Amino acid sequence: MTVSESPAELAPPDIVRCAYLDLVVTDLAKAREFYVDVLGLIVTEEDDEAIYLRTLEEFIHHNLVLRKGPVAAAAAFAYRVRTPEDVDRAEQWFAARGCRTERRADGFAKGIGDSVRVTDPLGFPYEFFYDVEHVERLAWRYDLYTPGALVRLDHFNQVTPDVPTGRKYLEDLGFRVTEDIQDDEGTTYAAWLRRKDTVHDTALTGGDGPRLHHIAFSTHEKHNILSICDKLGALRMSDVIERGPGRHGVSNAFYLYIRDPDGHRIEIYTQDYYTGDPDNPTVTWDVHDNQRRDWWGNPVVPSWYTEASPVLDLDGNPQPLKERTDSSEMAVTVGADGFSYTRKGGEDKGFKLGTSL
Amino acid sequence: MTVSESPAELAPPDIVRCAYLDLVVTDLAKAREFYVDVLGLIVTEEDDEAIYLRTLEEFIHHNLVLRKGPVAAAAAFAYRVRTPEDVDRAEQWFAARGCRTERRADGFAKGIGDSVRVTDPLGFPYEFFYDVEHVERLAWRYDLYTPGALVRLDHFNQVTPDVPTGRKYLEDLGFRVTEDIQDDEGTTYAAWLRRKDTVHDTALTGGDGPRLHHIAFSTHEKHNILSICDKLGALRMSDVIERGPGRHGVSNAFYLYIRDPDGHRIEIYTQDYYTGDPDNPTVTWDVHDNQRRDWWGNPVVPSWYTEASPVLDLDGNPQPLKERTDSSEMAVTVGADGFSYTRKGGEDKGFKLGTSL
Amino acid sequence: MTVSESPAELAPPDIVRCAYLDLVVTDLAKAREFYVDVLGLIVTEEDDEAIYLRTLEEFIHHNLVLRKGPVAAAAAFAYRVRTPEDVDRAEQWFAARGCRTERRADGFAKGIGDSVRVTDPLGFPYEFFYDVEHVERLAWRYDLYTPGALVRLDHFNQVTPDVPTGRKYLEDLGFRVTEDIQDDEGTTYAAWLRRKDTVHDTALTGGDGPRLHHIAFSTHEKHNILSICDKLGALRMSDVIERGPGRHGVSNAFYLYIRDPDGHRIEIYTQDYYTGDPDNPTVTWDVHDNQRRDWWGNPVVPSWYTEASPVLDLDGNPQPLKERTDSSEMAVTVGADGFSYTRKGGEDKGFKLGTSL
Amino acid sequence: MTVSESPAELAPPDIVRCAYLDLVVTDLAKAREFYVDVLGLIVTEEDDEAIYLRTLEEFIHHNLVLRKGPVAAAAAFAYRVRTPEDVDRAEQWFAARGCRTERRADGFAKGIGDSVRVTDPLGFPYEFFYDVEHVERLAWRYDLYTPGALVRLDHFNQVTPDVPTGRKYLEDLGFRVTEDIQDDEGTTYAAWLRRKDTVHDTALTGGDGPRLHHIAFSTHEKHNILSICDKLGALRMSDVIERGPGRHGVSNAFYLYIRDPDGHRIEIYTQDYYTGDPDNPTVTWDVHDNQRRDWWGNPVVPSWYTEASPVLDLDGNPQPLKERTDSSEMAVTVGADGFSYTRKGGEDKGFKLGTSL
Repeated sequence: MTVSESPAELAPPDIVRCAYLDLVVTDLAKAREFYVDVLGLIVTEEDDEAIYLRTLEEFIHHNLVLRKGPVAAAAAFAYRVRTPEDVDRAEQWFAARGCRTERRADGFAKGIGDSVRVTDPLGFPYEFFYDVEHVERLAWRYDLYTPGALVRLDHFNQVTPDVPTGRKYLEDLGFRVTEDIQDDEGTTYAAWLRRKDTVHDTALTGGDGPRLHHIAFSTHEKHNILSICDKLGALRMSDVIERGPGRHGVSNAFYLYIRDPDGHRIEIYTQDYYTGDPDNPTVTWDVHDNQRRDWWGNPVVPSWYTEASPVLDLDGNPQPLKERTDSSEMAVTVGADGFSYTRKGGEDKGFKLGTSL
Repeated sequence: MTVSESPAELAPPDIVRCAYLDLVVTDLAKAREFYVDVLGLIVTEEDDEAIYLRTLEEFIHHNLVLRKGPVAAAAAFAYRVRTPEDVDRAEQWFAARGCRTERRADGFAKGIGDSVRVTDPLGFPYEFFYDVEHVERLAWRYDLYTPGALVRLDHFNQVTPDVPTGRKYLEDLGFRVTEDIQDDEGTTYAAWLRRKDTVHDTALTGGDGPRLHHIAFSTHEKHNILSICDKLGALRMSDVIERGPGRHGVSNAFYLYIRDPDGHRIEIYTQDYYTGDPDNPTVTWDVHDNQRRDWWGNPVVPSWYTEASPVLDLDGNPQPLKERTDSSEMAVTVGADGFSYTRKGGEDKGFKLGTSL
Repeated sequence: MTVSESPAELAPPDIVRCAYLDLVVTDLAKAREFYVDVLGLIVTEEDDEAIYLRTLEEFIHHNLVLRKGPVAAAAAFAYRVRTPEDVDRAEQWFAARGCRTERRADGFAKGIGDSVRVTDPLGFPYEFFYDVEHVERLAWRYDLYTPGALVRLDHFNQVTPDVPTGRKYLEDLGFRVTEDIQDDEGTTYAAWLRRKDTVHDTALTGGDGPRLHHIAFSTHEKHNILSICDKLGALRMSDVIERGPGRHGVSNAFYLYIRDPDGHRIEIYTQDYYTGDPDNPTVTWDVHDNQRRDWWGNPVVPSWYTEASPVLDLDGNPQPLKERTDSSEMAVTVGADGFSYTRKGGEDKGFKLGTSL
Repeated sequence: MTVSESPAELAPPDIVRCAYLDLVVTDLAKAREFYVDVLGLIVTEEDDEAIYLRTLEEFIHHNLVLRKGPVAAAAAFAYRVRTPEDVDRAEQWFAARGCRTERRADGFAKGIGDSVRVTDPLGFPYEFFYDVEHVERLAWRYDLYTPGALVRLDHFNQVTPDVPTGRKYLEDLGFRVTEDIQDDEGTTYAAWLRRKDTVHDTALTGGDGPRLHHIAFSTHEKHNILSICDKLGALRMSDVIERGPGRHGVSNAFYLYIRDPDGHRIEIYTQDYYTGDPDNPTVTWDVHDNQRRDWWGNPVVPSWYTEASPVLDLDGNPQPLKERTDSSEMAVTVGADGFSYTRKGGEDKGFKLGTSL
């Protein structure tokens, strides 16, 4: 392909939404037990190498591929584009930026046709596709619903050292920022970016990267999320609950973070707000607002800031990490006891959990 | 303005979403009591002639104008467009179709700037605007939430005699059909059309028209809708509950229909599904599927089929009605007792409610 | 046993609560599909003749026995008493009233020990037992919960022609009335009576009797009941939904009535109020209050008034019916169209569902 | 009164349920703002010295008295008894045990008649009364419900150094243990005791005492509790959230702990199970079961173990504290970092929150 235009002149692909995550797990049977038996995702198709899973309201082949491999990692963040030609546009747009691209007419995963995978400027494996096999949308199949039914893929969350750079790149690619976390010195700690009409299709969390922070699935109501916790308790698996359930400040959604058998983080998420207007107001949170990440002021556990999954290059090798050089959100908000509750202006108020220690 | 292109060559405006309804009520105080005191909509602004109301997650000036007038009617179905130029496009597009248009740089309602109103080919007063005053999005103001909090405007529903003609026009205008109701003879009884990523921004219900069937607001969860019923019971206003609560077949949403003091119908609605993909599958329901309008098979009351609000022309006069000539959904599904439960193929099964009469 | 005391001198047994229903079904496989596969009741034990089912929070052997038989009917309404001696007291108390009693040291059902069955003064087969096998209380087993999980047996409801007579007998037996429905002429249409701290362990509904009106199971929350409706819709079984879901006026509980394959009526019920104080106020509803049976004013379908299950005598034969001679609630509240919405004082307001016919 | 019988021969009063807490607050206006404006309790009556509050389903005068005083403390834990004579029985029973008693025919609080207050063997001020003013049960007044509506008083929780001694005394007084926390060495850390058909009317928590650990109010559903957290966030009062929301292991209820302006702890609680049978199984939890206090394994914050409110003697003076000599639950379960997650048998698994520190 000849790329004669400068990157700035090239139209980006028209991305519709985040569509699926290609995830390497080290033990397929254990992963199946977690995602299918415990979380209730629907198996569209499976073989000895991979399991293709979808949510109850999905009509495309899958939202998650569990792929057997030696290193637990994210192999691709896949986005659906509006037309077949948008796959061409994606290939050209990234090639023009000097990114490695790989095009496959038959797709990289079952059920998906012509696609391109790229290593993006931040080091993440991104995929763009239009062609996909339709399967039954199970929205009306209430006989299949569990108390914690996952009905949609909502978003990805990526760890990258330099959030402003990452944000600029994603805005060029057509994403819009809905919310972010900053401080008075102008440091950006995280940003949320969308294509579909929700708060995000992906978010950037400041930290050593590139890494996958988490993938998020939606439920209909808050009690569905609580019932997942209850079930994990009944299965004596409460250890996999890392943070929450709680109400986010950012996004206003109700949330839960759990960890799969390989340590991949999954968020269960419900009830953010409509963002589809062109001038949808961006919400900026102060990093010292203790309600930014949990509206109820409950603490963010350190592991949530520090742990994340490697991502792979197009050859399947883990990407090396680049260190974050800006202040870390954990460093500026968490004290010596690991749980400090800080406020802007140095107000002398210890974290409520640690008050009596 | 010179319109040199043929209608087919003109690009339609890029409509973002249904944005607000301009509704004439005969008693402003009574209407305020209903929409503000009972339903809890937020007053953005009000004077002796009109009240501007919004939902809790809205950031534009209003989703509903209650305007004092002699005849209870819908004065405008207003859509937001993506850019200021899309208002021009709307004006040209309708003018090219011979529709009457009226442009006002200062808008037809407070808080709205440059807008065009048209009498569309079906006789409905449609408005298109981009410029609008931003107000506080109250999403995080849980101190203002009531048990039945209305968080978003979801859709309009319009009565028109010839659904296929109306559908073709709206598809030309850029809407996409997500679901419809048909029979084996090819009669279309209703169609649901969307711009934003939900099942609809508006729907066409077959009947004498043009009339407003209802306007729908969203809650977060199903219990919010139940609590509205409970409150109406406590206020000894249960008479205003016309149909539901129930689960729709079409849209898969949970619903309730109530009637305001002028008889205008309001739907309270929650939890339909994401429709934003370009090839989102259209769902066609058989008119004889008794779960199409209520998934639990509960009856559609006759008034729901027959009653609706007049709409006004651009001079404020009620539009004359054109009769539906196709079969009516009520006629083919409701028997002599007013509640028959019919099935395709004439299966001999009376409506369950009437079985024992 | 010698009964030397007059009935009035005998202390009634100390009844703890309604405990289980012994129910004859004509097709055990179909009944199992309904109660186990659809409703999710837990099988404690089963054989070719009977299935013993319990709710998730129950620790006694069963709350429902499905017993194969030629005629669909209720074989026994079983109550737990406080001590083994209360079984003696029950036997004596009914014998003193000339009722037929039958004592079995090994019980009438698996899992139950020493019990007495009686044909009570109203013709109902009542059982009293203390001794019962304990089984695992599954309250914490959230891995077994379904979206519509039934967690407790709540109450029975019995049809009897003369409600005041029935009420007096049950009060003598130690029940307390919590609510009733009357009219200005002093006719009593229904009464709710309790032993445990809820609105009722049983209720009397005026009509030809003795018959079983329904048995009610509790869920934790209202959405659990809605999900049962959703599942019935998905299974294309919406016909079994007879009435509701809705909010009761009487009891303030959220409810749903469904019918099993034999036509036995089951209520799903949640969130009535605490009634355990000795002077708990009795609530009397006017039969012409249209919110008494549905707080939202939705109609009571005629079948709900007219249909009920036979009950058996101690030999297993259906009890003959005695006609109600007082006014029937249906007759005074439902008009010629089958759905009239009546009000005290003859206010001219048709039932809202029928308004437009 | 002559007490000729030995304590063991005296029948204890027949206690119906926990009925109200008499609570001293140091700033009545601030307390009113918290309990009325934020939590939505209903004011039955108020003056400059005290505010009488009740829950929505209550029919007795109050469930909580806020009384202005110099020291924030609990002045009385009041129980309703079954008959007027049970007040006599209470007086005699405690007097026979050498406890100080004070009888007032006009009651110690408005709305309450003949009562006795005692300093019980554990040093707590207990009140017993039958006579009480009835007020409107607001259960059906959904126009008054807030999203976090408190519908019932559920229980008290008391801190006492020697749980087995306290338990024995309360069993003698007629309470039954439903659950407890022990270890292999036979130490009892806490016990739950009931009169009404729920898991408890009061509980004993091991620690320096006598102190009030908390008072608990019920909501109907779990989302009601979440909405209280959301509202506290909106009011920027998230600091008052001490622990939760979460699911208890003990009681299986959903819970939240908050602190009032004086530091008094309030639990919001919903959905424990029926315990009314005479042989209701007692559940014993191992102190090293990390799901005992939070079924999801979330940590108990140290303040929850260490902080509690003083209680007053019958002269209104704070009771001196007696130290707990048994192991403290916090000491055996919380590690050096303040949040260790311990397991029986020394399994090497750090507390999940602290893993990455």
